[in-house]
Amino acid sequence: MSTKIILLAHGSGGRLTHTLIRNTLLKKLNNPILAKLGDGAVINYKEKIVFTTDSFVVSPLFFPGGDIGKLAVSGTINDLVMMGSAPEYLSLALIMEEGFDQAILEKIIESIALSAKLAGVKIITGDTKVVEKGAVDRIFINTSGIGRLVLKKELSISNITVGDKIILTGNIAEHGLSVLAKRRELDLGFNIKSDCQPLNDLILPLLKHEGAIKFMRDPTRGGVATTLNEIAASAGLGIIIEEKFIPISQKVRVACELLGIDPLYVANEGSALLVVSPKKAYSMVKMLRKQPKGLHAGVIGEVINQPKGRLVLRTIFNTQRILDMLTSEPLPRIC
Amino acid sequence: MSTKIILLAHGSGGRLTHTLIRNTLLKKLNNPILAKLGDGAVINYKEKIVFTTDSFVVSPLFFPGGDIGKLAVSGTINDLVMMGSAPEYLSLALIMEEGFDQAILEKIIESIALSAKLAGVKIITGDTKVVEKGAVDRIFINTSGIGRLVLKKELSISNITVGDKIILTGNIAEHGLSVLAKRRELDLGFNIKSDCQPLNDLILPLLKHEGAIKFMRDPTRGGVATTLNEIAASAGLGIIIEEKFIPISQKVRVACELLGIDPLYVANEGSALLVVSPKKAYSMVKMLRKQPKGLHAGVIGEVINQPKGRLVLRTIFNTQRILDMLTSEPLPRIC
Repeated sequence: MSTKIILLAHGSGGRLTHTLIRNTLLKKLNNPILAKLGDGAVINYKEKIVFTTDSFVVSPLFFPGGDIGKLAVSGTINDLVMMGSAPEYLSLALIMEEGFDQAILEKIIESIALSAKLAGVKIITGDTKVVEKGAVDRIFINTSGIGRLVLKKELSISNITVGDKIILTGNIAEHGLSVLAKRRELDLGFNIKSDCQPLNDLILPLLKHEGAIKFMRDPTRGGVATTLNEIAASAGLGIIIEEKFIPISQKVRVACELLGIDPLYVANEGSALLVVSPKKAYSMVKMLRKQPKGLHAGVIGEVINQPKGRLVLRTIFNTQRILDMLTSEPLPRIC
Repeated sequence: MSTKIILLAHGSGGRLTHTLIRNTLLKKLNNPILAKLGDGAVINYKEKIVFTTDSFVVSPLFFPGGDIGKLAVSGTINDLVMMGSAPEYLSLALIMEEGFDQAILEKIIESIALSAKLAGVKIITGDTKVVEKGAVDRIFINTSGIGRLVLKKELSISNITVGDKIILTGNIAEHGLSVLAKRRELDLGFNIKSDCQPLNDLILPLLKHEGAIKFMRDPTRGGVATTLNEIAASAGLGIIIEEKFIPISQKVRVACELLGIDPLYVANEGSALLVVSPKKAYSMVKMLRKQPKGLHAGVIGEVINQPKGRLVLRTIFNTQRILDMLTSEPLPRIC
């Protein structure tokens, strides 16, 4: 085969599909379960598992700090981690446009393979579809995942009580701004790297303190403000965060000011929001800061009684304002 | 909300995403695990499970006998069944184009809900993305699935031996031709209904005869000829099928002749190929024929020693010819 672009026949289920699967996918994602090429994969579980799914439509496909492949692995891993589970298995479903460059596909698959390997998860089942040119923008990826629940008691918003601390594990807005800057070819005079990364190594050790973490969620689409709004609304309690404690890099601060964007609404792909009992919060921050992915971790706020269901920001000028959920879409296709 | 089309903001993770999820998805797919709206879903397993994924990009979205929603549920259920498992849980990931008609979305979700209910599976986790107009053709759907392995011994191509019978459970080519006729607005003078249907009720009772079925696969993309080629190649044995025994409706036969299409290469979405030990094959056909979905089931051929890795067709004129794997893509976006 000298073909270097994806043809419709690569998605036909016939000979070219097989060539693509064997030469590109199996070779790079090699593991014995996937290599069976069954209609699915058999795995053995004797306990509670977590099941999740996420599609990735990010544009551009490559951005400082990551690409659609790394994102597809990290995003689903992080959803599993946020549910209190140790990620073990992923599926990989590709939808490509006819004419898509095979060299780019190989780069993406290599990134997927490397990200999965570093995170200790296996890709064990998959699907490949090719649609005619124009029916999809280059490539979309779905990863679903299975994790082993490591907590005896499931995390739940209903565990949250007044006084619980809100921990954020990393600097905000880096993923969204990285993608935005690359897409619009903005010359900021500096690069902003996406924080896109799997968080199982950072977060899972914290779960040994059964009961200390009440709830976790990664502030992806809609950013920290939208995610905390969701938590406040579901808990029927208020949340207050302190602007001065929100970890943000100087580059991101400058870029947000230049672009007129509120970084609290920008997507993150490598940090987590933890709601933690006040007794354990500061020791947890200490643990987090010992790891490279948790260097900027800190308590950014706490759960309060009023206003119920709302998120309040105490600004650096000591004024307070309500932060609503994101209502428009400033940055589509961020993940 | 009087909005009747999908906006980018429906995929922002913010307020409109929540409205869409609560008013359309949760309302129609209602079950307590999904309603938790976690980053994933917790399920309890004490045994071997099967994990699979499939994306659906069919065009048109609605065709006689089915639609993209019914297909997305049936296709993933059938992959789980082919692995010898009882389907239990599905994920649902939607990628929609900005401007997509919400009424059509609701019809698709209703079809998903109904198909899942009839098949006894639950949709317990999901994801919704919206991309700008033109970045995807209306809607693509990924379903991943988890089933409970019901066999002690996993099905495997390596179990296949010379003399095993090939059973096909239903008429061929109905799905592919239904979609093709609808897409090209062909006036055949009659309607061909897709065979799109979940097969768990038809196939799972057969698995009580542990060891009788060696291997199963549903002949979707590439049709019966491509699927049997895959099996022959992997088993390192030959397969011969008898043209006179291949179940095909008169309508499909006529349509294929008119269109110059070989029905053995056309996709099916509601039938299965079973490789069965010769002692059990005919009693299994009897069992299959007692059910509406298995009315046309029959033994269509058997596993032979030579030619290794190839599929042979004995025609109605008693001549033999090799059937190769599908090499081009006559019917893209069939599933």
